[in-house]
Amino acid sequence: MNIEAEWMRGGTSKCWVFETQHPQHSRTNWDELLPRLFGSPDSRQIDGVGGATSTTSKAMILSRPEDDAVDVEFTFAQVGIEEAAVDWGSNCGNCSAVVGLYAIEKGWVIPDGDSTRIVTRNTNTGQIIIQRVDTPAGALPIVPDAQMPGVVFPGYKVGLGFQDPAGKTTGHLLPTGAPADVIAAGGTRWNVSMIDAGAPVVIVRAEQLGLDTARYDTWKPGVELQLETLDVIRREAAVRMGMVTTPGEAARAVPKLAIVGPPTGPECDVNVMMLSMGRPHPALAITGSIALTLAARTPGTILNAITGSTSEAVLKLRTPAGVIETWSEEHEGTLLVGVDRTARTIATSIIHLPETLGNAVEASLATATR
Amino acid sequence: MNIEAEWMRGGTSKCWVFETQHPQHSRTNWDELLPRLFGSPDSRQIDGVGGATSTTSKAMILSRPEDDAVDVEFTFAQVGIEEAAVDWGSNCGNCSAVVGLYAIEKGWVIPDGDSTRIVTRNTNTGQIIIQRVDTPAGALPIVPDAQMPGVVFPGYKVGLGFQDPAGKTTGHLLPTGAPADVIAAGGTRWNVSMIDAGAPVVIVRAEQLGLDTARYDTWKPGVELQLETLDVIRREAAVRMGMVTTPGEAARAVPKLAIVGPPTGPECDVNVMMLSMGRPHPALAITGSIALTLAARTPGTILNAITGSTSEAVLKLRTPAGVIETWSEEHEGTLLVGVDRTARTIATSIIHLPETLGNAVEASLATATR
Repeated sequence: MNIEAEWMRGGTSKCWVFETQHPQHSRTNWDELLPRLFGSPDSRQIDGVGGATSTTSKAMILSRPEDDAVDVEFTFAQVGIEEAAVDWGSNCGNCSAVVGLYAIEKGWVIPDGDSTRIVTRNTNTGQIIIQRVDTPAGALPIVPDAQMPGVVFPGYKVGLGFQDPAGKTTGHLLPTGAPADVIAAGGTRWNVSMIDAGAPVVIVRAEQLGLDTARYDTWKPGVELQLETLDVIRREAAVRMGMVTTPGEAARAVPKLAIVGPPTGPECDVNVMMLSMGRPHPALAITGSIALTLAARTPGTILNAITGSTSEAVLKLRTPAGVIETWSEEHEGTLLVGVDRTARTIATSIIHLPETLGNAVEASLATATR
Repeated sequence: MNIEAEWMRGGTSKCWVFETQHPQHSRTNWDELLPRLFGSPDSRQIDGVGGATSTTSKAMILSRPEDDAVDVEFTFAQVGIEEAAVDWGSNCGNCSAVVGLYAIEKGWVIPDGDSTRIVTRNTNTGQIIIQRVDTPAGALPIVPDAQMPGVVFPGYKVGLGFQDPAGKTTGHLLPTGAPADVIAAGGTRWNVSMIDAGAPVVIVRAEQLGLDTARYDTWKPGVELQLETLDVIRREAAVRMGMVTTPGEAARAVPKLAIVGPPTGPECDVNVMMLSMGRPHPALAITGSIALTLAARTPGTILNAITGSTSEAVLKLRTPAGVIETWSEEHEGTLLVGVDRTARTIATSIIHLPETLGNAVEASLATATR
């Protein structure tokens, strides 16, 4: 069995992109097929297309919906490495950046003017993402030249606009109804804000953690000393946001936790350190940056107290990996919040699956004769 | 520019296989092209096909020589990860296993009987490797089913026979002219054997290092305490073998050093621990196993003192990763020494190179229109 796939870089991730005519097809078959294609279970994924790291063991499944309002529907799959399993629980912001480029390269969407708009829907979260791909003079340039932090080589510029991202998990931008709350943990009453946009996030003030807000470079060791307390706050926030009924049930990945402090220079609007799976994140998850952007726009949040309710369209967040810019725009009652990434198609491939596995999937996949 | 390539697993490595009609073409162009295709320099190789580890950042360049005596000529390239550079200095035994399978899959060699013989020549070393690919009833099975240690999934069985491997580096199987020598280092006079076959190797006795030969599991910590002395031995051996004129000039990778001890059970003929780049190797380089096999066959070496001059065709070497079998056979004055691996084609790809790089290489490569 031979399976067509494009290997693409989206932002700082690599992912394998598959097409299906039947997106509603049972995920059970993909649960079996994807790990084998990727070479899992195997810490090295040596017999498959996986890259043996979390940012290179990712798949995207794309289809063209009959719904005219959406150009491309896509499902993100985090493929296990040491386990032959697939996690469908969230979207990947970086991988999302391949969808618009794929649609143009495959002729699903015809370039229109200097920037081509592609309406995409992520099925993991229900999120609509409006993508804008640079197409100067109505075409993709032969040699892409857009740069982004964290990627050495240029790619095509893709803007990702999360449409009305509030409340996708809990139903509300402010799940507790208030822009700021108090959570008791470790003998302290913490001033926090809980926001659901892109992902549910609880925000904590750097000052309350005793961090030196004038010296962002000292934050990491300071945060690492307080990981236990921060996890207590995070778990209590999960309960307050209505995601679970007791702190012990809180998932490891959500809600996310962000620590914020005032800017230390004109190059950014806020200093941010996010936790990921209990550790300081080396940069910032895109979904987390969406939540922080809406928090900055919402009067009464502890982030808004730092940034102010400016009408600035761009928010500059300092992260350990550098300053990340998000943008937001409102148009006819619709809010778009987003970031710019770059994307590129690395290889067009036919993956060879030796076993007669996933016969049920076969009918719904783009397959190829070698 | 689009470049055709097969992504193949050979043994415990993954490599990208390219075809060229002009193998003598200057390597300078490949030095520029391969790093960009692989996404180097970048510790994550996120914008290319490289796997960001030494065993997954490898390329093989294949051609069909006019010389009728050889079916396939191949060059191995170790592609740098953090450096945009290519190392052409050695062959890779694991990657070698893809060559015969490639030749059959591409129709260069027609399967003949239950085992198909492919004569290959490695241009890095000048080594002829006779490959035998299992082709039951004259064809590759649709579903490969051969297993090997270190790989979770099955592949096609490939036997690699190194033809007359002695002296490829120094000109002689026994570069000093003697099967055993004495080297002084760290106040001790070490009984060693120096062998050049597959790769130049100096062999040291486990007893002289004070290792408990009855307990192979205790070797690694014992060896790690004596790495400095072992490197002095290795560098002195480089001089004795005529590879360099002073110990300080010895390369880091060669000669290799192997520690040997008597077998601790019937499942093996010898216990072996090899050093790789100054550290205990987790298994055994294939080229090193060829040298040990010839050392075992050569009367007077310290390895022969352990194994005896038996006429056994198979030598079983215990390594930290398990027992590895080598085989040897003589036929009409030609000696073949080898190991069995498995190989599989993971994906048939067209790699997209955005820049107009390597125009000079383009003419000699198999390129494709997307």
